[in-house]
Amino acid sequence: MKLTTVREIYKNREQYMNQEVTVGGWVRSVRGSKAFGFIVLHDGTYFETLQIVYHDTMENFAEISKLNVGAAIIVKGTLVPTPEAKQPFEIQAEEVQVEGASAPDYPLQKKRHTLEYLRTMTHLRPRTNTFQAVFRVRSLCAYAIHKFFQERGFVYVHTPLITGSDCEGAGEMFQVTTLDMKNPPLNEDGTVDYSKDFFGKETNLTVSGQLNGETYAQAFRNIYTFGPTFRAENSNTTRHAAEFWMIEPECAFADLNDNMDLAEAMLKYVIRYVLENAPEEMNFFNSFIDKGLLDRLNHVVNSEFGHVTYTEAIELLEKNNDKFDYKVFWGCDLQTEHERYLTEQIFKKPVFVTDYPKEIKAFYMKLNDDGKTVAAMDCLVPGIGEIIGGSQREDDYEKLKSRMDELGLKAEDYQFYMDLRKYGSTRHSGYGLGFERCVMYLTGMGNIRDVIPFPRTVNNCDL
Amino acid sequence: MKLTTVREIYKNREQYMNQEVTVGGWVRSVRGSKAFGFIVLHDGTYFETLQIVYHDTMENFAEISKLNVGAAIIVKGTLVPTPEAKQPFEIQAEEVQVEGASAPDYPLQKKRHTLEYLRTMTHLRPRTNTFQAVFRVRSLCAYAIHKFFQERGFVYVHTPLITGSDCEGAGEMFQVTTLDMKNPPLNEDGTVDYSKDFFGKETNLTVSGQLNGETYAQAFRNIYTFGPTFRAENSNTTRHAAEFWMIEPECAFADLNDNMDLAEAMLKYVIRYVLENAPEEMNFFNSFIDKGLLDRLNHVVNSEFGHVTYTEAIELLEKNNDKFDYKVFWGCDLQTEHERYLTEQIFKKPVFVTDYPKEIKAFYMKLNDDGKTVAAMDCLVPGIGEIIGGSQREDDYEKLKSRMDELGLKAEDYQFYMDLRKYGSTRHSGYGLGFERCVMYLTGMGNIRDVIPFPRTVNNCDL
Repeated sequence: MKLTTVREIYKNREQYMNQEVTVGGWVRSVRGSKAFGFIVLHDGTYFETLQIVYHDTMENFAEISKLNVGAAIIVKGTLVPTPEAKQPFEIQAEEVQVEGASAPDYPLQKKRHTLEYLRTMTHLRPRTNTFQAVFRVRSLCAYAIHKFFQERGFVYVHTPLITGSDCEGAGEMFQVTTLDMKNPPLNEDGTVDYSKDFFGKETNLTVSGQLNGETYAQAFRNIYTFGPTFRAENSNTTRHAAEFWMIEPECAFADLNDNMDLAEAMLKYVIRYVLENAPEEMNFFNSFIDKGLLDRLNHVVNSEFGHVTYTEAIELLEKNNDKFDYKVFWGCDLQTEHERYLTEQIFKKPVFVTDYPKEIKAFYMKLNDDGKTVAAMDCLVPGIGEIIGGSQREDDYEKLKSRMDELGLKAEDYQFYMDLRKYGSTRHSGYGLGFERCVMYLTGMGNIRDVIPFPRTVNNCDL
Repeated sequence: MKLTTVREIYKNREQYMNQEVTVGGWVRSVRGSKAFGFIVLHDGTYFETLQIVYHDTMENFAEISKLNVGAAIIVKGTLVPTPEAKQPFEIQAEEVQVEGASAPDYPLQKKRHTLEYLRTMTHLRPRTNTFQAVFRVRSLCAYAIHKFFQERGFVYVHTPLITGSDCEGAGEMFQVTTLDMKNPPLNEDGTVDYSKDFFGKETNLTVSGQLNGETYAQAFRNIYTFGPTFRAENSNTTRHAAEFWMIEPECAFADLNDNMDLAEAMLKYVIRYVLENAPEEMNFFNSFIDKGLLDRLNHVVNSEFGHVTYTEAIELLEKNNDKFDYKVFWGCDLQTEHERYLTEQIFKKPVFVTDYPKEIKAFYMKLNDDGKTVAAMDCLVPGIGEIIGGSQREDDYEKLKSRMDELGLKAEDYQFYMDLRKYGSTRHSGYGLGFERCVMYLTGMGNIRDVIPFPRTVNNCDL
């Protein structure tokens, strides 16, 4: 259908002024009187609404006046300026056609609903202001990430979702199977006979595409992944979901500094893109969700990120141990409270913490010369804590092998990964960005369930 | 590391000519003589290679001459023109630093390997010409799709992977569970007690994001999904994978014609983007994989797609029934042989087939006035057959309900979907594009296993 969008009308208002236009959208409210009425229309293309004036000269005047919130209509009329009103213009309708009525029990009424209530109707909540803003920003944020990497020649790689291996030997995983759960085929020793399963072996949902991504970085030099990732962790927090999206760039011929430069450039690029392309939505968040949001994001775009080693960070935090539930000491993993203290109180901007003890980091991270720490980096941002985690990878065959032996990882499970150290190994680095955390950071939304269209958490898999 | 890419050198050769540059990459071949030698270097950023000349004045001259294919090196030298050689320029090296040697058993040697052989090493095959070309085009193709939809204001929606419902009542699905396969908790009646599973119910991997996508189209008007999709079908063909990526746009206030216009514009946009941004790769496919590829794609970009109803198509095909393994008749589902005959022999270009019998299409497709056919469309392209399948959706509550009743679908499983017809229903349409089929179409590659980085098929889940 040839419809003019509300976005188009707002962006090119001069072109449409005093012209006939046809728009389609959903009713936010109707106020009818005897001779005429007003409809507030939202068409999903733009954050702002459009006012429609209709008159009793229309055949279906009564029908229109009785429209419920949520009804779909198509309006033909003339766009006219309204210099004395709050809104800049309105449509004087010649025709209002009802595309689809809205039943009286429509659960979204004009009043404000809580986020908790809206979570019970994931199919309708994107029609509200808050979720219009969240999910448009989510879309723009995803595109900005692609744009950033593609402009720099990175190759987008789809790493697999179903996997026969457990990337880091860490993380609880979901099993994927076509076997009959009630009656699985068994081996003679009573274990499940996975040779009869779809893939002929036991398979799970991936927890990271990194190891696969590395194989492509050693071919294309710079690559990134952007896809779903899974954790079967029984944790019911505002920051964890069982299914989430992750971005994992990986670069050959790149050390830890290159890695941090890339992460910083990417975050700044994405923030700038969203501020430029969703100003209405970002103003909404700043006014109604998180008062300091715009100041904070603008500050980040214009400041250099801080850098501190883990060892220095521990020294700084130890002086404030009285403020923490968990006391810090060299060797401990940083909790969110520590991360936030570093970035919010000490640095007052995003900060990279580097060179963590090898014991608290993954086996593939490059061992530093001190023999104790690895070339890891976490990027901490105010309001969130860790948003990015990455490292330079161990590129030396023998060192990687001995670290894997120490941790009891089986060489045969990682043959392909060891091959990368055997055939043209390069210093290389990469990181992971949790996409939902990024969206939370950009919008100020406090619960991961409110930035994923259909969230999956413990005991929750609706729609 | 500050390295100049081979792409940068080719694209801006004047700027670098007779200048010192540092490049890094992997050795494709070394030819050494007593006093000097040549290295063919590939750095993963560009399809073409770069020639390096090195001399016995270097300390590590012997080491360099012995480098195996696949070794990683960093070269400092001067870019000089070579007017009498095949290649346009070369680097006169001052320094060749070995970043990582390549063991003697490196499986990729200079000779040509079969695609079947390369499938046995998915972690190394992206280093070959064919897979460099395939996976760069795949990346560009993905980006072109995002760019197309984002430029038109579509909202990118991440529909869920793990789902509690079976979208179309069709398709064999993978089960997702954290229960102990050997010892699942049971109900009193002996069935598996899924209330103890991670999500508190039985869950599967999605076969389509469409129904979820529709909920967002009714809020944002125009949306698209781009994510992984799964089929547990035991089919071992060159066109089927258990895990693949799919694009599913969905538009409110859009009928079947709008839907076809969108699909045609998208395909043309993507072809144009790839031809413009990967000319070297596309020439390679045209020369070595599929001789008529460029002619065919250029023809598609410059022609209007054909349109034919299913009923007309059956009439055309019936005249040629002697050519088919499966004879056609009104009511039959079209096989690939029929689809290809239509697009390759009859129309000689992409063609939309519309208005299929309702019996062979999904429950949610809009019933036409004849009561027998639905407003479906499949887009068929030469060399592939069906590449896109879509429809206008049934937007009438009662008609949808009665079709679901006919098919025995339970209303309670689709309450959210019925709600869309109850609260501001709009005429709306969408389609699904199998991303791998699109890449096959663009590259001329004949096996889906060769256009997915890590393919998942029956009995195959490597890496």
